[in-house]
Amino acid sequence: MEKLNILCIVGGIAQNSLNRKLFHVVEEMAPENVTIRTFAINKLPFFSQELEHDPPDSIIRFKDMIRDSDAVLFITPEYNRSFPGVLKNSVDWGSRPYGQNLWDKKPAAVMGATVGTVGTFGAQHHLRQVLAYLNMSVMGQPEFYFNATNAFNDRGRLINEKTEEFVKNYWNAFLHWIERVGDKKAPMIEGTFPTTDQEDSPYAH
Amino acid sequence: MEKLNILCIVGGIAQNSLNRKLFHVVEEMAPENVTIRTFAINKLPFFSQELEHDPPDSIIRFKDMIRDSDAVLFITPEYNRSFPGVLKNSVDWGSRPYGQNLWDKKPAAVMGATVGTVGTFGAQHHLRQVLAYLNMSVMGQPEFYFNATNAFNDRGRLINEKTEEFVKNYWNAFLHWIERVGDKKAPMIEGTFPTTDQEDSPYAH
Repeated sequence: MEKLNILCIVGGIAQNSLNRKLFHVVEEMAPENVTIRTFAINKLPFFSQELEHDPPDSIIRFKDMIRDSDAVLFITPEYNRSFPGVLKNSVDWGSRPYGQNLWDKKPAAVMGATVGTVGTFGAQHHLRQVLAYLNMSVMGQPEFYFNATNAFNDRGRLINEKTEEFVKNYWNAFLHWIERVGDKKAPMIEGTFPTTDQEDSPYAH
Repeated sequence: MEKLNILCIVGGIAQNSLNRKLFHVVEEMAPENVTIRTFAINKLPFFSQELEHDPPDSIIRFKDMIRDSDAVLFITPEYNRSFPGVLKNSVDWGSRPYGQNLWDKKPAAVMGATVGTVGTFGAQHHLRQVLAYLNMSVMGQPEFYFNATNAFNDRGRLINEKTEEFVKNYWNAFLHWIERVGDKKAPMIEGTFPTTDQEDSPYAH
């Protein structure tokens, strides 16, 4: 099987974050041919157009990691029915400067854990809208809205076997998805992104 | 006329940001009874549950400013069809810790400038969803989707008189709105926010 580098962007930055626990479970259950990498997105500065043409080291390293990835898995908490600022900030960095959107055509998937029945639905769908704009190829099914109340034991393992089974199926589906839509060699099609047309463009400000 | 303190949260942090230009125009055209304050939201750390119970000074000052405000005006750029991380991060800080949502019942309005015809519609509507969850009273009309291509002269003044007229009307409408829904003395109604019910609650992670 082809080796795959998968970048995980984890939106929970606290040590005891549920989404970090979920990340560790997902990492541990990754298929053999998958290498998981992640990045401390809380080390990135806030995006500013003043920084983008001569960015600090952290940005350069983050962008290299996006470039080297065959696919991206987003694991997001829900803050006030949307994604956290720290996660959105990292996504914006990967899309800039204008015309150098590194997310373009990458296969992606979205998961999230929270305490409550909404299960990060709000956060994930805000994120999906952004990823659609960025022309990522985001897996539709299975969805993963996770009410993680009492889901982990003291060692951070999933208590419920059915949840574990679900993660396993999720991995299978994601790998099939990557095989179907992934193409690391596909060049950016000039002029197709973004659809807006100015060098010094919309979301820059 | 009653004196009003209005807090402006400006999502563009670059010096030459269009949204900062818009902010300065809005500030200059503020009615006499209005005092405008703003905050350098790029000085806030990324939200983490590890920080919220013993937050750094910047957070304490930011929260004081929210508390002291009679209303809040959000001025947002659009990054990838949503709001910038730096803005969302500030909103999340104002909502925490659990049960101490400082945005609750504050009158608010949303504006945004960009280069392009979408005029920050995407960013504003993601933001409106978050503000609804936070129980802010957000003015519906007039909307302010601003394609700011060539809108400002070298001194940062609006070139088009009609735009200036629009800002003036916007201020009038916002002041009426604040009069209608604003009530600084209204206590938080216990148990009504958030609708989820755990101390260590959803979006914390």
